[in-house]
Amino acid sequence: MNTIIRPTLIIDKTICLRNIERMAKKAADHNMRFRPHFKTHQSARIGDWFRNFGVEAITASSVQMAEYFAANGWNDITVAFPFNILEIGNINHLSAKIKLQVLVENTEGAEVLAEKSTGSIGVWIKIDTGNNRTGIDPANTVLMDSVIKRISKNTKLRFKGFLTHTGHTYSASSTDEIFSRHFDALLKLKSLKQRYKKSFPDVEISMGDTPAATLCNNFNDVDEMRPGNFVFYDLMQQNLGVCSFDDIAVKMVCPVVSKHLSRNEIVIHGGAVHFSKDEIFNIDGKSMFGRIIIKKDGENILLDQMNYLSKLSQEHGILKVAQNQFKNFEVGDLVEIIPVHSCLTANLMGHYRTTDGKLIEMMPRF
Amino acid sequence: MNTIIRPTLIIDKTICLRNIERMAKKAADHNMRFRPHFKTHQSARIGDWFRNFGVEAITASSVQMAEYFAANGWNDITVAFPFNILEIGNINHLSAKIKLQVLVENTEGAEVLAEKSTGSIGVWIKIDTGNNRTGIDPANTVLMDSVIKRISKNTKLRFKGFLTHTGHTYSASSTDEIFSRHFDALLKLKSLKQRYKKSFPDVEISMGDTPAATLCNNFNDVDEMRPGNFVFYDLMQQNLGVCSFDDIAVKMVCPVVSKHLSRNEIVIHGGAVHFSKDEIFNIDGKSMFGRIIIKKDGENILLDQMNYLSKLSQEHGILKVAQNQFKNFEVGDLVEIIPVHSCLTANLMGHYRTTDGKLIEMMPRF
Repeated sequence: MNTIIRPTLIIDKTICLRNIERMAKKAADHNMRFRPHFKTHQSARIGDWFRNFGVEAITASSVQMAEYFAANGWNDITVAFPFNILEIGNINHLSAKIKLQVLVENTEGAEVLAEKSTGSIGVWIKIDTGNNRTGIDPANTVLMDSVIKRISKNTKLRFKGFLTHTGHTYSASSTDEIFSRHFDALLKLKSLKQRYKKSFPDVEISMGDTPAATLCNNFNDVDEMRPGNFVFYDLMQQNLGVCSFDDIAVKMVCPVVSKHLSRNEIVIHGGAVHFSKDEIFNIDGKSMFGRIIIKKDGENILLDQMNYLSKLSQEHGILKVAQNQFKNFEVGDLVEIIPVHSCLTANLMGHYRTTDGKLIEMMPRF
Repeated sequence: MNTIIRPTLIIDKTICLRNIERMAKKAADHNMRFRPHFKTHQSARIGDWFRNFGVEAITASSVQMAEYFAANGWNDITVAFPFNILEIGNINHLSAKIKLQVLVENTEGAEVLAEKSTGSIGVWIKIDTGNNRTGIDPANTVLMDSVIKRISKNTKLRFKGFLTHTGHTYSASSTDEIFSRHFDALLKLKSLKQRYKKSFPDVEISMGDTPAATLCNNFNDVDEMRPGNFVFYDLMQQNLGVCSFDDIAVKMVCPVVSKHLSRNEIVIHGGAVHFSKDEIFNIDGKSMFGRIIIKKDGENILLDQMNYLSKLSQEHGILKVAQNQFKNFEVGDLVEIIPVHSCLTANLMGHYRTTDGKLIEMMPRF
């Protein structure tokens, strides 16, 4: 910490490895392929940490990210984003080098894939199990049949099965709600698997989200899990009841530059270009962009919810700090902030610093 | 546009130059030094465009950004962020090379500057004129005197005067409110100038924000203006009544990857890692992350407020599109989106593409 003078994203490798190990064990215990989503860390170095736990297949959130990890030794990648027909050239390039899987959710995409793809590609049909972002409605088997029919015109394309991201577990208001949303999604995918098993004996189902992957234990018939955020977790997951504070592997360290006693505010260097503007709400309904950890008598102390990162502009962060804590902040101090959404914070920061001061790089920007 | 296959930030140089020219003229007309804030574009190349308009002095939002622009030929830089005492080494390094100005708002900062700075540095006192983010209350001249007294202990430090960022013009609900907030801030700074003129005949005042710099015409006694966002403007400024759509110099181009008629939604590649999560609200109170421009019969058409970028996840953007517009979107189309906050969008994207397809780089990440 002594040489830090600017906003810095610290990664605790021990916690990371524990998170990876736990999730790898969970996948193994439930006979699922573990295909972690690498969009959270976006780093070849951190990616390598997964290899010790038997991971050989990964998920990426863009073709560009798949290109980066393919260049860094990963040979089995699913791009978990609807196939963008404008990227067919890049897809062909990638499928010539690695085992590639893509997601299709409409006939336009299926058509272009069938006509223009040159290599062997696995094709998942994306199913919307209630998140209402992307995917085909589970009841719309007419559209699924139509997609499969188009894919089958190109013998190098393999229909893999049905994939979903139960992203609405992130907006659950209790762990019970996470269980029920996961279970609902599971039933929908299982029905599809059953229906298509006659024509496609190898049809698989793949599920994703960190909340369900962490908490739930019903993965009956699920072939693959693709959680991503679990490698770091964050304040959002802690707040959801998915992880404890001890499981959070990344924190921002920020310098205190000013104190404003009249409004109980501390100004830190650490703003929207460091944290991102994802927020959660504290017990009073106030927007929180992070929770605060201070050092006192050599010990790290997590302050309660009445002390929080309350505002972000481009470079400035404002901490709301209760009267009785105010004296614990001095200009020139470094404070630790637990970020709300580790994926977006890491994406903004562009690199990590390990707890023993080493630099870990991420994929370059667009 | 033809070779774009992924989310791309397009810059229109003609509009940029017009914005710069207009603001340079405004500063000249009011006898103010024009010290544009470079945090919006963060690019040495775009910075060079300002030189043709006589700009020699600039503003940066961090010491790191000042280092980048100093390395790219800028010799007069104000770091418009409260002096971070942990960066004194970097400050000394910079002040040995360029004419450097810093902001101080507390005795701790003034003390360290006085004791540890080695080069000639201009020191502004940051004044809080109502934005309540940083700065000394205009009534607290006791604190100002105390800061000035400390600074004066080091003969290489020059007290420059009083600087404010009237950032609360951004949250104004009408242009009248922008006028009154600017005028209020102006009166506060003028009072300070008058008070300190006897002891410091060269004392100056410096103001910042794009809304007031664009709209207001009362800059009586103001020595310097430091707007930043005006170089691009954005949807937030248009929505505030500060600029027209024709003044907005950057737009995102994003591929359409999916259509969901049942909920009037179009999925684009373009998410929180491209746009940032700053939002404004449409006429129905719904969050908007951008407005949509489509191409029809070779013409660009700006769709009304009922068509907008409504949701962002890491890579996905969701467009809400009115029933009668739905047919104008096809999978594989490129749509243009006007971003809500150009500073944060540019910061995320990391580079620009000109309308004639050339790449413009930005400063590297942290």
